[in-house]
Amino acid sequence: MLAFFRKAHSITYRGSVNTAWKRTKAHISGAQRLDIRGIYPPIATPFTEKEEVDYQKLNANLEKYGKISFRGLVVQGSNGEYPYLTVEERVEVVRRVRQALPQDKLVVAGSGCESTMATVQMSQLMAGAGADAVLVVTPCFYRGRMDSRALVQHYTKVADSSPVPVVLYSVPGNTGLDLPIDAVVTLSQHPNIVGLKDSGGDITRIALIIHKTSSEDFQVLAGSAGFLMAAYSVGAVGGVCALANILGSQVCQLEELCLSGQWEAAKALQYRLIEPNAAVTRKFGVAALKQAMEWFGYHGGVCRSPLQPLSEAESKALRQDFSSNGWL
Amino acid sequence: MLAFFRKAHSITYRGSVNTAWKRTKAHISGAQRLDIRGIYPPIATPFTEKEEVDYQKLNANLEKYGKISFRGLVVQGSNGEYPYLTVEERVEVVRRVRQALPQDKLVVAGSGCESTMATVQMSQLMAGAGADAVLVVTPCFYRGRMDSRALVQHYTKVADSSPVPVVLYSVPGNTGLDLPIDAVVTLSQHPNIVGLKDSGGDITRIALIIHKTSSEDFQVLAGSAGFLMAAYSVGAVGGVCALANILGSQVCQLEELCLSGQWEAAKALQYRLIEPNAAVTRKFGVAALKQAMEWFGYHGGVCRSPLQPLSEAESKALRQDFSSNGWL
Amino acid sequence: MLAFFRKAHSITYRGSVNTAWKRTKAHISGAQRLDIRGIYPPIATPFTEKEEVDYQKLNANLEKYGKISFRGLVVQGSNGEYPYLTVEERVEVVRRVRQALPQDKLVVAGSGCESTMATVQMSQLMAGAGADAVLVVTPCFYRGRMDSRALVQHYTKVADSSPVPVVLYSVPGNTGLDLPIDAVVTLSQHPNIVGLKDSGGDITRIALIIHKTSSEDFQVLAGSAGFLMAAYSVGAVGGVCALANILGSQVCQLEELCLSGQWEAAKALQYRLIEPNAAVTRKFGVAALKQAMEWFGYHGGVCRSPLQPLSEAESKALRQDFSSNGWL
Amino acid sequence: MLAFFRKAHSITYRGSVNTAWKRTKAHISGAQRLDIRGIYPPIATPFTEKEEVDYQKLNANLEKYGKISFRGLVVQGSNGEYPYLTVEERVEVVRRVRQALPQDKLVVAGSGCESTMATVQMSQLMAGAGADAVLVVTPCFYRGRMDSRALVQHYTKVADSSPVPVVLYSVPGNTGLDLPIDAVVTLSQHPNIVGLKDSGGDITRIALIIHKTSSEDFQVLAGSAGFLMAAYSVGAVGGVCALANILGSQVCQLEELCLSGQWEAAKALQYRLIEPNAAVTRKFGVAALKQAMEWFGYHGGVCRSPLQPLSEAESKALRQDFSSNGWL
Repeated sequence: MLAFFRKAHSITYRGSVNTAWKRTKAHISGAQRLDIRGIYPPIATPFTEKEEVDYQKLNANLEKYGKISFRGLVVQGSNGEYPYLTVEERVEVVRRVRQALPQDKLVVAGSGCESTMATVQMSQLMAGAGADAVLVVTPCFYRGRMDSRALVQHYTKVADSSPVPVVLYSVPGNTGLDLPIDAVVTLSQHPNIVGLKDSGGDITRIALIIHKTSSEDFQVLAGSAGFLMAAYSVGAVGGVCALANILGSQVCQLEELCLSGQWEAAKALQYRLIEPNAAVTRKFGVAALKQAMEWFGYHGGVCRSPLQPLSEAESKALRQDFSSNGWL
Repeated sequence: MLAFFRKAHSITYRGSVNTAWKRTKAHISGAQRLDIRGIYPPIATPFTEKEEVDYQKLNANLEKYGKISFRGLVVQGSNGEYPYLTVEERVEVVRRVRQALPQDKLVVAGSGCESTMATVQMSQLMAGAGADAVLVVTPCFYRGRMDSRALVQHYTKVADSSPVPVVLYSVPGNTGLDLPIDAVVTLSQHPNIVGLKDSGGDITRIALIIHKTSSEDFQVLAGSAGFLMAAYSVGAVGGVCALANILGSQVCQLEELCLSGQWEAAKALQYRLIEPNAAVTRKFGVAALKQAMEWFGYHGGVCRSPLQPLSEAESKALRQDFSSNGWL
Repeated sequence: MLAFFRKAHSITYRGSVNTAWKRTKAHISGAQRLDIRGIYPPIATPFTEKEEVDYQKLNANLEKYGKISFRGLVVQGSNGEYPYLTVEERVEVVRRVRQALPQDKLVVAGSGCESTMATVQMSQLMAGAGADAVLVVTPCFYRGRMDSRALVQHYTKVADSSPVPVVLYSVPGNTGLDLPIDAVVTLSQHPNIVGLKDSGGDITRIALIIHKTSSEDFQVLAGSAGFLMAAYSVGAVGGVCALANILGSQVCQLEELCLSGQWEAAKALQYRLIEPNAAVTRKFGVAALKQAMEWFGYHGGVCRSPLQPLSEAESKALRQDFSSNGWL
Repeated sequence: MLAFFRKAHSITYRGSVNTAWKRTKAHISGAQRLDIRGIYPPIATPFTEKEEVDYQKLNANLEKYGKISFRGLVVQGSNGEYPYLTVEERVEVVRRVRQALPQDKLVVAGSGCESTMATVQMSQLMAGAGADAVLVVTPCFYRGRMDSRALVQHYTKVADSSPVPVVLYSVPGNTGLDLPIDAVVTLSQHPNIVGLKDSGGDITRIALIIHKTSSEDFQVLAGSAGFLMAAYSVGAVGGVCALANILGSQVCQLEELCLSGQWEAAKALQYRLIEPNAAVTRKFGVAALKQAMEWFGYHGGVCRSPLQPLSEAESKALRQDFSSNGWL
């Protein structure tokens, strides 16, 4: 619980004395849920040519990210190539990010593993490394058996033992599995589960989850810049957007337009973000994210194998997705 | 072209002399695109116990629908069980609807068939029966070969020869096929193609289509009440919503809230429509739509075989989806 | 080839001794089922350049097919572009085939429609046109509701009223729907349902169906030349193979090798049929089938729109799939 | 490399006459590949109630497996819950298995990880622990980018550096990814890649792979007892069958019947294995495998979380799948 106290002054908890917002229904006496509202880039992990983590380049990126009005960073999300890192690397990257980042920015660390046991341990390691919250992807290898019963039990055990709040993470594009709505509703009642990152993009599902968890102070984050505005329109409170690694200010500007009700301007900006966002995610993946980062003054570098660099044709198409929308 | 003149006074064409709105870039001299903005129920086809079309009950429904602020009706959409009707029935139902409906309401008739030839003929028959526009679903039996090339050619031939404007229709839940975005963009330039009904629910795709067809006065309708508000937020101009067969005024109210920028109220209403909408569409299908219609004073009746009536458990769950959201 | 001779004058029913064909009795006692063992090409429908049915070219094909040791022909299967034909055309093609074909060859006519009502009528029309059996594809537009209950009811009504035996037809590649195994088992007990054409290619499923219907004299046909030998190994009694439109003798030779237990030779032949078969089915579709027919002395011609002719690159790849296996 | 010499006399290499095994020479000449023909159970990992690896119970199982005519065991396949084990556990289990198993049985160890780097290291660890070969599953988290280029590079690097031969492993049910045929063909030419375990069950694909790698002395193993006989019929040389954990002698008997050309008897036996096999794999998963093992005198025990024990209804259905086929 050290991490909590260390950041006592810099991080706002909903219901804390100094804020207007008061949680009406506290689950546990004095329960406060971490306020995770805002925009987060799920940061890439720069590698050297030899595919080793390049902490220098990571720091250079962090210095820039620290100046953008992000709520925080997601570390070890899908874009961080976490499945390719060792346990030690995963933890060390989080430690470095926490050290380098201004204290008012949240560090949300991906701690999901396939087994409950490993996820519990990883969550503790991440908290120890300074994470303010952990992002826990659905285990998926045995997806045919990952029903609500299994997933509720998994997340409950993880949340029960995690020193920091848990954010659920549903990313069917990678896992082949949607965290079922009824499981989300059940889990939203857990005092240490504060929200959900939903990367599936099914806006009906997102709206329904927000509706059905409305009594629980449960916070839903859009998992992509592609549907960020629509997600805000139905009640999401932020976004974890790969594109924010590259066009961070612009994604934060879209947040601001949505929050201030400037929907026409928001729409115009949202439109221009869709194709670049798709290009660095499902169309061309992490290699594209890293390549585009280079174009915009960040350090991307190579991916770990087996992820391959873009072909020349892909690189050209990627560039086109940015330039045709006025970003290059 | 007779159909056009018959409705001269009752139907607004964008760019018509009597309205303020003027289409700046006409594709063809004097080109006017039919204004399809608004809400449409894709009406069910009532059957007798012997599974014959029940025109009396249809008329009773129409009388009620005529009093709701719909823009018009979609006849022979998926909810109309069109794949189960003969050519003659499909046309006759449209003819009856046109007769019964107030002249200021649009009749949009589903005319899609698997072959281009049959779709061309059906579109002409529908126009002859009084349809103001035709809604053309993607052919899908040979879906592996229905690429952009094939679909652009198909829709171009249909639109070239149709006496009334064409609305594209993408409904992957039934067809297993998304009309590709590049095909939509190409087809949006056709003077006789006025819009798209998109039932897939991928809000990123919908926003991108609106973005990429913005110079073409191309109108996108949400294909479901489940994501209607989100669709409005990103620029859709209306919706074809199965749920409007049952909660017509409420869906129109959601439209009004969105158009007038009352997003908080819209959100509250949108939330309550998601589960009932899902229940009468992908969860339980047309049989549920028809059963719920009975509860709300409309005539539903049986479905044609092989569609089966709901089991008792399904019926109970359906009722719960309405009552838990305050509609029953 | 004994089976052929056993069927002397026209059509042999299993269990018949030397009686004339007695339909009513067979229906009541269930003692005789039409023997459908053997190889069938699901014939293509030749069209003129104007996309009209070209009966002359059809006859020319039939003359050649009549000389190959097929058990019969499937008319109006997926390769016959049946979804693109009118009711009248579907029936007329069957009538012409029956007239042109030697009497010892079976005509199995596709009579599947989306509604039960239409399928019942079409089955009767097909029988009237001379079909020896009807092949009934699963209705699929409302696939989410096509569960065992719906499908058992559908097929039972069709079989109850069909003047000729019914063959079930599961083709998930086109319909997005597998006829459930429990439905097949139930339906196998119907006296007028004689077998199943399974085009899915899941050999475990095929074996299990044969196992679970073993007491019912139920005949399973492989729906493709790609897994014909494997299907024979687990108990299938024949195949409906698109490739037999082109390499008819060779497919019949594979049957012969399997039936006579020459598995090594069968394997060598089977291997060489896989790629050509894939090329004219799921890889490039009916247009490829028709183009390859031209190379082998049959009449293919164009497809109906929206099916497109092959691109030059596709045509080249198609040719390669035949030539690299020694057929061209 | 110690492991190799230890087994010098007990393991047959194809092409070897009576020479000691010479790795370098074999690589250069391609003259000798490890012969992997035969049946393998992909063994379960028994856990204690506290979800720790239970080495005692593992040994008890191994003692029994050692007496069955298996070619060897697959350790750390999907049924071994390898994604739930730590690196240390994965290696230790292999070491224990090698110690306990008679020297003439092969130990094939799963060494697949998401990154190439980790897979290279794990393969070396497995060889060090005594594995005779490594089974390398396709990395899959970024499945959208796992094309032939990426996978060929991945497997080539692994095979280049692995001290023991590599068996490719395609299991789309878990990974959502089929190892593309062209990648298999390319990889079959690598001197240190000896075969493929294909668990997808697409018999056409399996036959085509065997056909296209026929010049390479490449050995294909069926990944399931459900299609084992069909796989033998088209040229597979063995099987890795979950069901062999339970009905090991029977699966070996099926192998024997296929190899000796007793196809009718093989068919009768194959039929009875399909439902039990499906029950312990895709229907109910590893928990069912472990439960059924208990019924047949082996030690299964619990699964690691988040895998759940079977519900009572599932357990009953599982039992039925064995009893209705005469095994219980």
